[in-house]
Amino acid sequence: MKTEKLLFGAAYYSEYLPYDRVDEDMRMMAEAGMNTIRIAESTWSTLEPHDNVYDFSHIDKMLAVAKKHGLSVIIGTPTYAIPTWLNKKSPDILALTHSGQGIYGHRQNMDITHPGYLFHCERIIRKLIKHVCNEPNVIGYQLDNETKSYDTAGPRPQAMFVEYLKEKYPDIDEFNHEFGLDYWSNRINCWEDFPDVRGTINQSLAGEYRRFQRKLVTDFLQWQADIVKEYARPDQFITHNFDFDWSKGHSTGVQPEVDHYLASRPFTVAGCDIYHPSQDELTGAEITVCGNIIRSLKKDNYLILETEAQGLTAWLPFPGQLRLQAYSHIANGSNSVMYWHWHSLHNAIESYWKGVLSHDFSKNATYMEACQIGKEWAAIGSHLKNLKKKNSIAVLVDNHSLTGLAQFEIPSLGSGGYNHVLRWLTDTLYQLNLEFDIVSSYERDFSDYDVLVVPSLYSAGEELLLALNDYVKKGGHMITTFKSGFSDEQLKIYHDTQPHIIRECLGIHYDQFTYPQNVGLSLKDECLCKKYEDNADASLEAACFKATDFMELVSTDTAKVIASYAHPSRKDYAAVTENEFGKGSALYLACLFDSELLKSILTNYLVKNGVTLTEYVFPVICKKGINDFEKELTYLFNYSGEKQTITYTGKSGINLLTKETISNGISVTIAPWDFIVIEEI
Amino acid sequence: MKTEKLLFGAAYYSEYLPYDRVDEDMRMMAEAGMNTIRIAESTWSTLEPHDNVYDFSHIDKMLAVAKKHGLSVIIGTPTYAIPTWLNKKSPDILALTHSGQGIYGHRQNMDITHPGYLFHCERIIRKLIKHVCNEPNVIGYQLDNETKSYDTAGPRPQAMFVEYLKEKYPDIDEFNHEFGLDYWSNRINCWEDFPDVRGTINQSLAGEYRRFQRKLVTDFLQWQADIVKEYARPDQFITHNFDFDWSKGHSTGVQPEVDHYLASRPFTVAGCDIYHPSQDELTGAEITVCGNIIRSLKKDNYLILETEAQGLTAWLPFPGQLRLQAYSHIANGSNSVMYWHWHSLHNAIESYWKGVLSHDFSKNATYMEACQIGKEWAAIGSHLKNLKKKNSIAVLVDNHSLTGLAQFEIPSLGSGGYNHVLRWLTDTLYQLNLEFDIVSSYERDFSDYDVLVVPSLYSAGEELLLALNDYVKKGGHMITTFKSGFSDEQLKIYHDTQPHIIRECLGIHYDQFTYPQNVGLSLKDECLCKKYEDNADASLEAACFKATDFMELVSTDTAKVIASYAHPSRKDYAAVTENEFGKGSALYLACLFDSELLKSILTNYLVKNGVTLTEYVFPVICKKGINDFEKELTYLFNYSGEKQTITYTGKSGINLLTKETISNGISVTIAPWDFIVIEEI
Amino acid sequence: MKTEKLLFGAAYYSEYLPYDRVDEDMRMMAEAGMNTIRIAESTWSTLEPHDNVYDFSHIDKMLAVAKKHGLSVIIGTPTYAIPTWLNKKSPDILALTHSGQGIYGHRQNMDITHPGYLFHCERIIRKLIKHVCNEPNVIGYQLDNETKSYDTAGPRPQAMFVEYLKEKYPDIDEFNHEFGLDYWSNRINCWEDFPDVRGTINQSLAGEYRRFQRKLVTDFLQWQADIVKEYARPDQFITHNFDFDWSKGHSTGVQPEVDHYLASRPFTVAGCDIYHPSQDELTGAEITVCGNIIRSLKKDNYLILETEAQGLTAWLPFPGQLRLQAYSHIANGSNSVMYWHWHSLHNAIESYWKGVLSHDFSKNATYMEACQIGKEWAAIGSHLKNLKKKNSIAVLVDNHSLTGLAQFEIPSLGSGGYNHVLRWLTDTLYQLNLEFDIVSSYERDFSDYDVLVVPSLYSAGEELLLALNDYVKKGGHMITTFKSGFSDEQLKIYHDTQPHIIRECLGIHYDQFTYPQNVGLSLKDECLCKKYEDNADASLEAACFKATDFMELVSTDTAKVIASYAHPSRKDYAAVTENEFGKGSALYLACLFDSELLKSILTNYLVKNGVTLTEYVFPVICKKGINDFEKELTYLFNYSGEKQTITYTGKSGINLLTKETISNGISVTIAPWDFIVIEEI
Repeated sequence: MKTEKLLFGAAYYSEYLPYDRVDEDMRMMAEAGMNTIRIAESTWSTLEPHDNVYDFSHIDKMLAVAKKHGLSVIIGTPTYAIPTWLNKKSPDILALTHSGQGIYGHRQNMDITHPGYLFHCERIIRKLIKHVCNEPNVIGYQLDNETKSYDTAGPRPQAMFVEYLKEKYPDIDEFNHEFGLDYWSNRINCWEDFPDVRGTINQSLAGEYRRFQRKLVTDFLQWQADIVKEYARPDQFITHNFDFDWSKGHSTGVQPEVDHYLASRPFTVAGCDIYHPSQDELTGAEITVCGNIIRSLKKDNYLILETEAQGLTAWLPFPGQLRLQAYSHIANGSNSVMYWHWHSLHNAIESYWKGVLSHDFSKNATYMEACQIGKEWAAIGSHLKNLKKKNSIAVLVDNHSLTGLAQFEIPSLGSGGYNHVLRWLTDTLYQLNLEFDIVSSYERDFSDYDVLVVPSLYSAGEELLLALNDYVKKGGHMITTFKSGFSDEQLKIYHDTQPHIIRECLGIHYDQFTYPQNVGLSLKDECLCKKYEDNADASLEAACFKATDFMELVSTDTAKVIASYAHPSRKDYAAVTENEFGKGSALYLACLFDSELLKSILTNYLVKNGVTLTEYVFPVICKKGINDFEKELTYLFNYSGEKQTITYTGKSGINLLTKETISNGISVTIAPWDFIVIEEI
Repeated sequence: MKTEKLLFGAAYYSEYLPYDRVDEDMRMMAEAGMNTIRIAESTWSTLEPHDNVYDFSHIDKMLAVAKKHGLSVIIGTPTYAIPTWLNKKSPDILALTHSGQGIYGHRQNMDITHPGYLFHCERIIRKLIKHVCNEPNVIGYQLDNETKSYDTAGPRPQAMFVEYLKEKYPDIDEFNHEFGLDYWSNRINCWEDFPDVRGTINQSLAGEYRRFQRKLVTDFLQWQADIVKEYARPDQFITHNFDFDWSKGHSTGVQPEVDHYLASRPFTVAGCDIYHPSQDELTGAEITVCGNIIRSLKKDNYLILETEAQGLTAWLPFPGQLRLQAYSHIANGSNSVMYWHWHSLHNAIESYWKGVLSHDFSKNATYMEACQIGKEWAAIGSHLKNLKKKNSIAVLVDNHSLTGLAQFEIPSLGSGGYNHVLRWLTDTLYQLNLEFDIVSSYERDFSDYDVLVVPSLYSAGEELLLALNDYVKKGGHMITTFKSGFSDEQLKIYHDTQPHIIRECLGIHYDQFTYPQNVGLSLKDECLCKKYEDNADASLEAACFKATDFMELVSTDTAKVIASYAHPSRKDYAAVTENEFGKGSALYLACLFDSELLKSILTNYLVKNGVTLTEYVFPVICKKGINDFEKELTYLFNYSGEKQTITYTGKSGINLLTKETISNGISVTIAPWDFIVIEEI
Repeated sequence: MKTEKLLFGAAYYSEYLPYDRVDEDMRMMAEAGMNTIRIAESTWSTLEPHDNVYDFSHIDKMLAVAKKHGLSVIIGTPTYAIPTWLNKKSPDILALTHSGQGIYGHRQNMDITHPGYLFHCERIIRKLIKHVCNEPNVIGYQLDNETKSYDTAGPRPQAMFVEYLKEKYPDIDEFNHEFGLDYWSNRINCWEDFPDVRGTINQSLAGEYRRFQRKLVTDFLQWQADIVKEYARPDQFITHNFDFDWSKGHSTGVQPEVDHYLASRPFTVAGCDIYHPSQDELTGAEITVCGNIIRSLKKDNYLILETEAQGLTAWLPFPGQLRLQAYSHIANGSNSVMYWHWHSLHNAIESYWKGVLSHDFSKNATYMEACQIGKEWAAIGSHLKNLKKKNSIAVLVDNHSLTGLAQFEIPSLGSGGYNHVLRWLTDTLYQLNLEFDIVSSYERDFSDYDVLVVPSLYSAGEELLLALNDYVKKGGHMITTFKSGFSDEQLKIYHDTQPHIIRECLGIHYDQFTYPQNVGLSLKDECLCKKYEDNADASLEAACFKATDFMELVSTDTAKVIASYAHPSRKDYAAVTENEFGKGSALYLACLFDSELLKSILTNYLVKNGVTLTEYVFPVICKKGINDFEKELTYLFNYSGEKQTITYTGKSGINLLTKETISNGISVTIAPWDFIVIEEI
């Protein structure tokens, strides 16, 4: 969605204030150049203090004062935390999960299929949206927040699951066969015998229940969208705040519990929250990887509905980092930076998830840095917004492969193995300054892209695997890894030569695999050998040339060996291969290894296949796009605490902030945690 | 409480003997110079084998044989472990907790508010006390043992909690406001909607429930005291065996689950058990810190009702340590050393918590060392007992600040953060040979003390914070740390400049904080800089000069910077400050760091402010007091396996054990794990 | 049991195939030289798809095709995993355990005392066995699989436990006394008060429940055996697949949950599964130790009913290892090597527990190596089978001592402490090439053996302890360790001088013990001192000469000190002692230490007492026995990735595989992961 200005602001909750300071807060926002707030999300108990009794005074006050200060408002439906009276009325709204029966307190723990929950949701949504939809400064709606199934697994949702299976498998024998339920006597000979799915030792069944739970999310959001659309004006957008896998303690990668691709269908614009490490650990990788996932949902600009200001205690930004982050989001195609949240909370679980303001509401260092962002965007925002991206590389992601690798985990990677492999690849692309899109495994035509990167596509139907062969045959370049094409959509392992179907374009096969112990990598590619000979560095070698976590014992059919295993008992097997197939080619990574070596292997492969790499190396990050003036913008970020001096290579342009001219070949110095943005002349 | 002699003995359970050896045991006790046993505690199932059927034969036998051997007896009420028949009769006496419904077996797992439990408790208490109260050698009573609420959290105690809240907050809106329940829609709009508190995500509410649970303990002990007082003779004392936080696997610090200050009100004398590491890890710090807590409850001598003989397997003392420990307790103001327990158990969970005797009842090394103690105390005990302390330093402790720092924990410190900070300070005082009292946060007048040490006073009402300002203004010297004055009594974070109120006496403020990563400390105080320049020691520096765990970004108003942060992005902020305020001063520690540096900073600050430090350094520990003859006693302990040679500084006196004269300035050698005790001439 | 040929094959499940390939599979088996399959185990839901509806088509097909390809068949009763319809019919068949109520999905989670379970078991067993018992190629039956009690602990089994106790202890007071239930008021004054045993803090009671649970297994297997014997032909054997403790993640040692000795009584032949680490971690120790346990049950050849082919992902064998393992089993007295399983599974929890074939059914490296084994055994198997062993060393094992050391664990060893000590001793024997038998603590006469090794015999009745004294007195040599003779059969600690009774033959006593911290070992034996002086090796010393995990402070009565503790406070105590007693002697190890030092101490002790050691040192392993031709076979295995050159010492013979003559004194080179087998001429 294109916007008239960059949206800059914060989530705001007058409900949580220790004293009334709405006017003062909004004055400070406006002074900081902020222009948008998001309200109402999660405040059901103040909006409807008693069953069917409503109080919109907080909403009315915020809307009125926002109008006074020129702030736009996004209204959130408040449904992701139920009020105490609803818990009292219907305690069974709280989901029964794999961990047992939930009790009241936490948000996001209800059974989203519960008719009573849906009844009360619908009523409060209608009351609220009807109440606000004609306010001129209401620009859009956010439905619920970070919706999941919350692992609902009580008797009713399980009965729904059995109906879902019956429809999918009219023949119960076919169901038993596909899921391999004969194993350990788990066969279900009639649907009435269906046992509690929570106890199953059958990963196909457990995985299917995860897929069913994702469907519940898709259905729930579609249902909320249909209600809100009855009231929304044509100029008001509808969005959702998607979040991501948090397996590394922050936004990490593909969300296991939501099918972003299907769930985003009803929305005008895709939105999300991105949280990431800060201080010495700020790299910008999460802003890019997660932002790319969301940008690709609508293949359009997106909204950052939440991101950290001070954030968690570990994340208090160094001077410069808040601004660096804000521009990174915009440079990635976001049209907004909205902080969670304006002020820090004085009670309850997120008191140490700090906002722009600290608990004392003073103009602290974070606020002052926000003021600088606001001031700059007032001046040059029109050059920055609606950045259009045209990338030649795409990364294919698949929710059920993630499930498969969590069900059958590689022990050293844990349940987050899929995103580990994804990030191994995407972070290397990121550090090589190769921008990329994300494509869904629902797609079949990848011909828009020169290069398709396919991390561990563990679960894939034959149609998709054939599409990958076809992509390569017609000239595409595919980079894929171990554990791809191994099982079908139900996690049933294919019973012919591995990797199923794509072994054709890969020119390899294997039937054994193990965890490497003291297994080295021996380079066989001439260019790579030469490179490392030229840069002989013992310590690099020690770190680099080692297979880690998992290895397949690959034999080549038509492929060329790029690296083989260095181990007396495994030396006949390949670790990395390349294969020409039709007009294209495919690179196969049969094990994990150090990302520095991956950089070399990818560079080698991509350059050979016509991809141009910049001279910039991380911590310098370069991002490009076309702005509303149809000019190319080039951002150069310094993701480090040391200043960086580089030679600018690109179209001559104007540094939008200093108005200096930046010509091709000029030397440019970027201060620590700073950046420049150049618009072509 | 003053006693006529030092009480020396052990808990004794004839009920647990594999064969009858009561006479032999007591003969061995008497031979060892022991004079007191504690009996009956936890033996309900032998005292009342069936509902309302009593058997006091074990008691009678023990009392009779004790009389024969001249042993005094402390009678424990047996209520902390219920018999099987009571469990059978009322299974719901076992508490429902945050972890679910308890089952029978363990001790200390009942709902202490259960009317049926209270009924049966009262009956057995009355029967037992009536039976023994006229025995001449019964000198006192111990009520229950290490009483807690055992986390009772079933529907009834929760209903009691709602009544307690209603009384405290007649206005439900004020309740919601103070506790910030609007957050995540947790608002309680009428008391009937009150949800199961075990699920709450509101730390104010969870914390208040912990406070309510502490009140249950206070009420229960008061109730038992009222019953026992009906029978007790005037010469018989009533006490309780308090224990401590065990977060480090032994007696560590302030007990989270009991409000020692309030709960000790009904007692004649304060009692406790102290368990601590031994062998290479014996430092005496727990004997001192925990002993000080208990001594300060009644501002009087106290009783060690339990401490380790052989103890847990890891704690088997080295030769000399048992005696070193015994004298350390007495030197700290205890009037007793009672071992848990006389003999080691042949069955059940504490079979490897060994007593004075091993399982074979032989005269082992531990028993022989006890004999030496007994012999010495028979000779010089009258000079040692009733030691009076007059300390000029106090440490302020607060139960609810502990709760607050457990609810909002510093991750690297875990839920034991409060006691970690307490021990960081108290162990440094201890190693500097600075004796101290403990004062409660219920107190307001600290003018008896020259120095007040206030570890992380996270939760504090304004009245207390004002009292601290006042203390400094009138000439006191306060040493306090990060996280003080941050939230009110309900853990609601103060919404003005931090630290709330006490920033006035501290002369500082801050609004941001984080966890340090590679953040050094840069000394700014001239004396300290000189000290470390003089003793330039690279390895010391490496360990010392580093902020750890948590850091506040402090700006000074009137304070002087003692140390600032060494980090490019944090160098403008102070880590340690000093401030003159009125007639006094205040030292602020904004982060944690190595205790060797803390020693230097405290020494520097205290000397500057008129506190005299001895020349003795740990492992030599010095303890003083005035004995019944109004003479000053000086103990010098060697807490190491190496002999220590020191120059004695103090009043000339007599080594009570050798009768040698010890003059000021004389060189004294103390053997490994040994000590000397000098009575002034 | 003697067999006519070595049984070589795999578990086979046509039920789990993705498509029908029974004929092709069996053709491949026959081609590989396999001759036996095991079927039917765990396939109840295909055999009886609905209550009382049977379908033996899979069985019939497999039997017919097996006959065609000359394969023998072992039939497993399918009772260790219940079908979904039975769960639906009687959900309470799933056991209530210490962890709560189980839910359907997993195998081995039913209450094996449940009458409904037993009813349905008996019906399917009778139907199945009757159906197959006359098939000529059915050679035997396996009852259930790896049977346990599955920790059944619901009200009914607990009521059975109370009946069991009543019978054992007609006098409830004696019961209370022996179990020490007075402690913490746990006394049971009438049987009706018996509380839920799951909560007990009394290890005697908890331990007795574990013994009772083992009895349930014994009873269940006897019950199945009685049923199957009604049908079995005289030429058909009945066996069970015992497994082992898995505390180290593979077959480790004595099974805590089954009394192998009693449970094996009904069987014709003892069988088991052995799984072990592979690749760099393959040592052969598990094949030996676990194999010896099973061989000793019937003092006869045994069956390996399951072992790994490719196994778990971490275990994929190096080339040569599959064959090395197969011969190691046979050299240890097994008459079979049966893989679990033929093909890898395409669904469910064990998809990555790979069989001989991978998921693609191709002739992979593992299959090809199996073909080599099959070919060789067809040629020389008649020389290898029915190997008779005559060992002069035995290791005494005791199930309840294991329970005792799990109930009262040495913290650094965890609940697997008993097997840790067992393996410390047995692995040292193994590496010294000393073959040994296992004897049960039910036995009393050990006079067949020159040396009896007794790891931590924590729980022992006086009769057994007296038998050990007697064994030594009459000329035996006993090697025993700390924690032996410490408690009786109910884990009640003996209350006289430790170690109870056997202190007589050991010539020592102790009453204290602790965990060593920085405690060295100081050698006192002349030979040992000289040895280490001669081989002065600083790094060896550093590792070796340290007490670890647990130490007793031993004083000698008549014993000689071999090593004492090197620590200022413990130096007067012995760590290792030797004692002459009657015609024999006893070695006591009072602590754990490095196994290299143990090797020296054992060698020293054994040589002194007339045991002959070979010159071979691990990784060369030597195994011997007498074959059906009454010739001595000598196996020499190389358990390493480096070739080994040794001097052969022994009777001259023929290398059975190469037909070369091997003479005494000849130099022999064994390739990595290879072996030779020599038959005396």
